[in-house]
Amino acid sequence: MNEMNHFDAAGNAIMVDVSEKFLTERAAVASGKIFVGAEVYRAIESGTSKKGDVLGVARVAGIMAAKKTSDIIPLCHPLPLSHCSLNFEPLPQESAVKVTATVKTTWATGVEMEALHAASVALLTIYDMCKAIDKRMTIGELHLERKSGGKSGTFKFE
Amino acid sequence: MNEMNHFDAAGNAIMVDVSEKFLTERAAVASGKIFVGAEVYRAIESGTSKKGDVLGVARVAGIMAAKKTSDIIPLCHPLPLSHCSLNFEPLPQESAVKVTATVKTTWATGVEMEALHAASVALLTIYDMCKAIDKRMTIGELHLERKSGGKSGTFKFE
Amino acid sequence: MNEMNHFDAAGNAIMVDVSEKFLTERAAVASGKIFVGAEVYRAIESGTSKKGDVLGVARVAGIMAAKKTSDIIPLCHPLPLSHCSLNFEPLPQESAVKVTATVKTTWATGVEMEALHAASVALLTIYDMCKAIDKRMTIGELHLERKSGGKSGTFKFE
Amino acid sequence: MNEMNHFDAAGNAIMVDVSEKFLTERAAVASGKIFVGAEVYRAIESGTSKKGDVLGVARVAGIMAAKKTSDIIPLCHPLPLSHCSLNFEPLPQESAVKVTATVKTTWATGVEMEALHAASVALLTIYDMCKAIDKRMTIGELHLERKSGGKSGTFKFE
Amino acid sequence: MNEMNHFDAAGNAIMVDVSEKFLTERAAVASGKIFVGAEVYRAIESGTSKKGDVLGVARVAGIMAAKKTSDIIPLCHPLPLSHCSLNFEPLPQESAVKVTATVKTTWATGVEMEALHAASVALLTIYDMCKAIDKRMTIGELHLERKSGGKSGTFKFE
Amino acid sequence: MNEMNHFDAAGNAIMVDVSEKFLTERAAVASGKIFVGAEVYRAIESGTSKKGDVLGVARVAGIMAAKKTSDIIPLCHPLPLSHCSLNFEPLPQESAVKVTATVKTTWATGVEMEALHAASVALLTIYDMCKAIDKRMTIGELHLERKSGGKSGTFKFE
Repeated sequence: MNEMNHFDAAGNAIMVDVSEKFLTERAAVASGKIFVGAEVYRAIESGTSKKGDVLGVARVAGIMAAKKTSDIIPLCHPLPLSHCSLNFEPLPQESAVKVTATVKTTWATGVEMEALHAASVALLTIYDMCKAIDKRMTIGELHLERKSGGKSGTFKFE
Repeated sequence: MNEMNHFDAAGNAIMVDVSEKFLTERAAVASGKIFVGAEVYRAIESGTSKKGDVLGVARVAGIMAAKKTSDIIPLCHPLPLSHCSLNFEPLPQESAVKVTATVKTTWATGVEMEALHAASVALLTIYDMCKAIDKRMTIGELHLERKSGGKSGTFKFE
Repeated sequence: MNEMNHFDAAGNAIMVDVSEKFLTERAAVASGKIFVGAEVYRAIESGTSKKGDVLGVARVAGIMAAKKTSDIIPLCHPLPLSHCSLNFEPLPQESAVKVTATVKTTWATGVEMEALHAASVALLTIYDMCKAIDKRMTIGELHLERKSGGKSGTFKFE
Repeated sequence: MNEMNHFDAAGNAIMVDVSEKFLTERAAVASGKIFVGAEVYRAIESGTSKKGDVLGVARVAGIMAAKKTSDIIPLCHPLPLSHCSLNFEPLPQESAVKVTATVKTTWATGVEMEALHAASVALLTIYDMCKAIDKRMTIGELHLERKSGGKSGTFKFE
Repeated sequence: MNEMNHFDAAGNAIMVDVSEKFLTERAAVASGKIFVGAEVYRAIESGTSKKGDVLGVARVAGIMAAKKTSDIIPLCHPLPLSHCSLNFEPLPQESAVKVTATVKTTWATGVEMEALHAASVALLTIYDMCKAIDKRMTIGELHLERKSGGKSGTFKFE
Repeated sequence: MNEMNHFDAAGNAIMVDVSEKFLTERAAVASGKIFVGAEVYRAIESGTSKKGDVLGVARVAGIMAAKKTSDIIPLCHPLPLSHCSLNFEPLPQESAVKVTATVKTTWATGVEMEALHAASVALLTIYDMCKAIDKRMTIGELHLERKSGGKSGTFKFE
């Protein structure tokens, strides 16, 4: 039976006890989009090929954020990451950029939150660097794409 | 003319020079939603009224995240916040929760990123606390609602 | 023979070498009290049952602090926590609140400092949230209740 | 009228709005003790005069902790410190060490929490460095000694 | 008269009291070099023009480090930065890269340490990204180039 | 064949995947110097023996920095340290101080960056504490002395 395992029987928030769980290789992939409008889209695109590398900065921000997930999300376990990468996909028809973050660990808990956090921070960094052009950007479709490893096994979105 | 002011003339990323800007009172409001599905929605709702206060934890996470924005977003200026609050609105028809974050400062730069970061982390915290029930939650519609203060004046979304 | 193992032979502070120690399951429980006076005590008590959940915020603060112990205590080893929870006990006769923090890890060093740090920060958070009512609160009786695991085995206070 | 100003009218935790408050010079002094027993007391005392400078490390830990107070205490405002110092007083008759932390700022809110946090972390650092000798140490009498500046004016304990 | 102002009269480390100092605009420029040998030099140079942008990552690392200086250097005052930028100069004849960091604030203390820390971390990041090719790189000539503002006025190296 | 493994095939920065690497005991030693001039040299020397212990503060700063390496260096893996110590050697003929940092872990990646970061921060801390006397200090000769453990085996400088 599924339940909210971040609370004890009395309803108090806890960091779940994972001391009985096995260390296994776990991976998670999360993605999200930022819808930026035509003007910002052109700025990002030309910036990437020429100068003003928005996505390069966003990539570094996302990787560093993955490492800080347990600092930021209160009940996340601190864990050592064995890999993190971010991929950006330009979506000209939506005037959007899609980011996909992949994180791995060999540990007792999964890295779903690390992948979501990395993607989220990469998108916020794009917002920050482009907000002088247009503040109407929207972040959306941020979700877990898939995960593998651990007792609950493999998950695929949809 | 609008341009990407996070790059110098050679296209290198910089922290923008704000030393000539005035300290004025500035405020920003950002909002976003997490679409959680029916089962998680019921768990959050009953948790809030009885025990297992998901939104209470998410609120603390959002406020603490506002304070760490310049740690996480690479080119953000560190600045002292004079206020931060988060409001949660249950949206039963969408099986969603909407978070609205309000941040204030009296400083040379605005707090748009602080408000967006606070909202984003509150939504990710909800994801984290409910992911044992259902991993198909999606975060969306994260955007700046409005801002005031500073040279660029007031902004309202749409 | 017992000695201060946080110094080398020349008296210089070091992070003790634990590379020869075994990874075993370790737990620690620490507790402390905040003596708040009658007025604050009533505010906390009514807040907990109705609104203004001081202890809920203090609990999140304590859990997050447990994760940051090695950032704050200079010679503490960074280590992955497998569990953290805090329990609050109202003590009406002393007009006090007692917090008990439990931390676990499976690692080469113990989590005594993590438990003490979590309890300490939870108590300071109560102070912070109530200091507008009365600044004369006092924190005391902060100590290790018990620990288990590791070469030095089990410890019980008193 | 005194009230818990860390909650809004609906009982939700907030970072209090200080945007209307004046920047004035503020100071706070907090103190606390660690009761260490005779054996640890001798180790600290001889360490201070000869080698293995426990109090020197605890002093640095306390100063660094003062700067991190708003990272650790959820609803504390981030603020720039203009001064921090710690003083240690050996109390041979109690087999204790008393730490007194002094913090200053010129800002819209006070530094009571910074002074308390600095004292608390200095005491925990002493615990950490001496726990191999004796784990029965107790931290107590941690309280605000006095504060000055700001609308609420001067406070003196007792 | 010059003295070590990071100690009180008793020789104890303190964070210097700057509460009497004026807020003025202050700037600091620091530079340093990493001597990388011919093979790494070619990799950085080709990486910068084509792909694998070592200096782009090092630039982001340096800017973020400037913001964390008071977290890392124990007695540094936390202060708000109004500007940070890094410039890289390839030195083919020395097989070296020179980094120059510029930091500004309008505050009661200077930003010498922020500029030095930013330059230092940028150089360490280059080391990290190239160490798989050659571990014999050396960092040197790290110093303050110049500073302006504040009571001690302008400084120029040599 | 040696290559820059911090980039993927498309030239994008990544945190290298170490999930296939074995956990082995690894150690790294790094050193560097600060050239301080005669006046600062005397101040440090007298401070160390009498009061104003510059090197004691620098030692704590270096150990704490070792623990934060993955926070500061963007593509560094977070990893648990099993040991860290710093040694200072006065070099009267050069009016310099040499710092040597030793770090150990039992993990999938090495601790070269941790040792370099610890040494670098210890040197910057000396700069900070002595800059009121003379700002012309220079940091140099910062390099990896040796490392052991891991697939690439043992390295010795020169």
